[in-house]
Amino acid sequence: MDIKDAEPGATNAAGAGGLPFDAGRLDELLDGAGIDVLVVSSKHNIQYLLGGYRFFFFDHFDAIGLSRYLPLLVYVRGKPADAAYFGNPMEGYEEALGKFWTPRVEKGWGSVPVTEQAAAFVASLGKQRGRIGVERAFLPADAEEALRRALPDAEIVEAVVPLERLRAIKTPQELDLLRTASERVVDAMLTVMAGHRPGATKLELTEALRREEVQRGLNFEYCLITAGTSTNRAPSGQVWGEGDILSLDSGGNYKGYIGDLCRMAIQGEPDSELEDLLGEIEAIQQAARSPILAGARGGDIFAAAEPLVRQSSHGNTLDFVAHGMGLISHEAPRLTSNGPVPYPGDDADRPLAAGMVLSIETTLAHPRRGFIKLEDTVAVTEDGWEAFGDGGRGWNRGGTAAG
Amino acid sequence: MDIKDAEPGATNAAGAGGLPFDAGRLDELLDGAGIDVLVVSSKHNIQYLLGGYRFFFFDHFDAIGLSRYLPLLVYVRGKPADAAYFGNPMEGYEEALGKFWTPRVEKGWGSVPVTEQAAAFVASLGKQRGRIGVERAFLPADAEEALRRALPDAEIVEAVVPLERLRAIKTPQELDLLRTASERVVDAMLTVMAGHRPGATKLELTEALRREEVQRGLNFEYCLITAGTSTNRAPSGQVWGEGDILSLDSGGNYKGYIGDLCRMAIQGEPDSELEDLLGEIEAIQQAARSPILAGARGGDIFAAAEPLVRQSSHGNTLDFVAHGMGLISHEAPRLTSNGPVPYPGDDADRPLAAGMVLSIETTLAHPRRGFIKLEDTVAVTEDGWEAFGDGGRGWNRGGTAAG
Repeated sequence: MDIKDAEPGATNAAGAGGLPFDAGRLDELLDGAGIDVLVVSSKHNIQYLLGGYRFFFFDHFDAIGLSRYLPLLVYVRGKPADAAYFGNPMEGYEEALGKFWTPRVEKGWGSVPVTEQAAAFVASLGKQRGRIGVERAFLPADAEEALRRALPDAEIVEAVVPLERLRAIKTPQELDLLRTASERVVDAMLTVMAGHRPGATKLELTEALRREEVQRGLNFEYCLITAGTSTNRAPSGQVWGEGDILSLDSGGNYKGYIGDLCRMAIQGEPDSELEDLLGEIEAIQQAARSPILAGARGGDIFAAAEPLVRQSSHGNTLDFVAHGMGLISHEAPRLTSNGPVPYPGDDADRPLAAGMVLSIETTLAHPRRGFIKLEDTVAVTEDGWEAFGDGGRGWNRGGTAAG
Repeated sequence: MDIKDAEPGATNAAGAGGLPFDAGRLDELLDGAGIDVLVVSSKHNIQYLLGGYRFFFFDHFDAIGLSRYLPLLVYVRGKPADAAYFGNPMEGYEEALGKFWTPRVEKGWGSVPVTEQAAAFVASLGKQRGRIGVERAFLPADAEEALRRALPDAEIVEAVVPLERLRAIKTPQELDLLRTASERVVDAMLTVMAGHRPGATKLELTEALRREEVQRGLNFEYCLITAGTSTNRAPSGQVWGEGDILSLDSGGNYKGYIGDLCRMAIQGEPDSELEDLLGEIEAIQQAARSPILAGARGGDIFAAAEPLVRQSSHGNTLDFVAHGMGLISHEAPRLTSNGPVPYPGDDADRPLAAGMVLSIETTLAHPRRGFIKLEDTVAVTEDGWEAFGDGGRGWNRGGTAAG
């Protein structure tokens, strides 16, 4: 189980025993959830358990022929030596490069045949009556049916929570990737803002941002964008005109790890009201950071921000949220049920840990002045926090670098 | 059902009655498959049925929080006025821009709640005992379970074949997108080949190609790459050295439509054996095109190519395949069971139709000289064919434009 050769793709190789993740922690989480065998199918958890590996051919799509790419990783609780990876035949190229730590690698085409291979392997281990943990939102219906058909005495249970929990504390290597992603997203945004005079459309600005992020080695994921007094955040033909404000809220990933930040700009100079509005948002963002350190309650972040939100004159148009992030844009720690993605805020009363990474967002949809927002990425450290990509937080001026 | 406002995203707006697809043809296909109601969940078929629309925020990933993005489109056979789209709350921005032709649009977070909304809508139409067509490889297990729970008397059946069949003949607008994608992929490849002297690694060349494709407005999907005498097609630290050949086989999409082509290069000058090998591949590719026109048997393409493949001295290392392509890289017409993606070649005995688009590939994994391949995109026309992005078919020279 030597993973030396897998190093080119390895990003979270921090675990003991040669595995690229903390197998002891995973076993503990599986034990707590009563799971005997994992059959993992989501790209993000496959990447995590394979130490950063993500098959390049199907990075952006899944569909092929009448079916799809469906990678499966089988992990038996407490027995990494029984792990196996089920991929696509083209992943033989990656196998030849030593990318897989699993002792066994099999390959097939289509969701059902690959699942049948994985199920036969689980049966061969004598686990046909076990509790099999799957990610039901990421396991196709035909694959789950194939699994149940092949393992009729097994119990299929949900594994998404223990897998998310496993990813909550980032390794130094993962923090480096998140820092890089955040810095490059902000740098790309500032370049786009400075590079466009009045007249560019939101679609043009989005395309420019895509190019700038890719130029910096990122995978562009999306840009939510507003211009002027509109609060519509979809790219469109709307023009960023003279005197207009602009918000860019973009996600781009570096080797799978997401940078997701929001910065503001204006064509011209902000008046005092705009300065005050962004200043108020900045004050909330800074207040939210102040209690962060390893051991602090997750809920303290909200406790610090909420008095400022409540005393604001912008009332119910001002919105504050904080949530974990990493391989996906909303993950543990789950600090609130009050975010755009509803999930229980069951980490609010638990201690933050060094290596957790938070996205902190304050949003003002101002009825007269438009959409004003800052979103930051903040990593928890032993004695405080570190903000990734923390530049460009004021009113950036449009067109200052335009030709 | 006025779709005028949806035009910015519309690409296949060719159907009658204001719909962006041929609803009569869809109804006929659903009738043949005994499907009363479609609940479509794949991104490619959602895009097709919504006239080119693809929600930008989740274009590259699905996971968020403990669940995922799951768009659903409900279409009742023969009743477009009963259609509904179930998206994410952020798609309200797109709704405000008039992107949806469906009379009803609802929004929710997570695979199960959205499916429950769609199921309740199906029930409200009195279809709770109907045959519901879904794409089981693209419907998560938890969503299918929610559908079955909410509609216990419905029969859930597979709809992937009629939906693929609907997409087989491309509209002029779709052909334009495929032409653009193909031309830009080839142009990007030639730029990368000319821009690198001996010494670049396969990873560096792949990153350069990603940037060049994105610079041209494409979404980069993947690059299969070989250098020298190796036949390993994964990006890696291997160097493209002096005298080495190079194959670039890349997919990039333009507004969702894929360009997927393969071109060759060399650092230096090809010797006569290399000229002969690529010449043999070129002859097979040209022979394969020769029978193509509307009305010809799909199998005629293989009949034309196979004698040349059989008489080749490279025997079983030489591989020929042809298959349909469009929104996904292997789709109808399905001409052979002999391709990398196994599906029945049941279009081999059916006539080709104008507007079908084929990917034609001849591959030689030469044990001594390396991996040599051409892949072309060929559209069927009334009186013949048109090849998209047909340049750069010989031995392109590395480094001719390097600084």
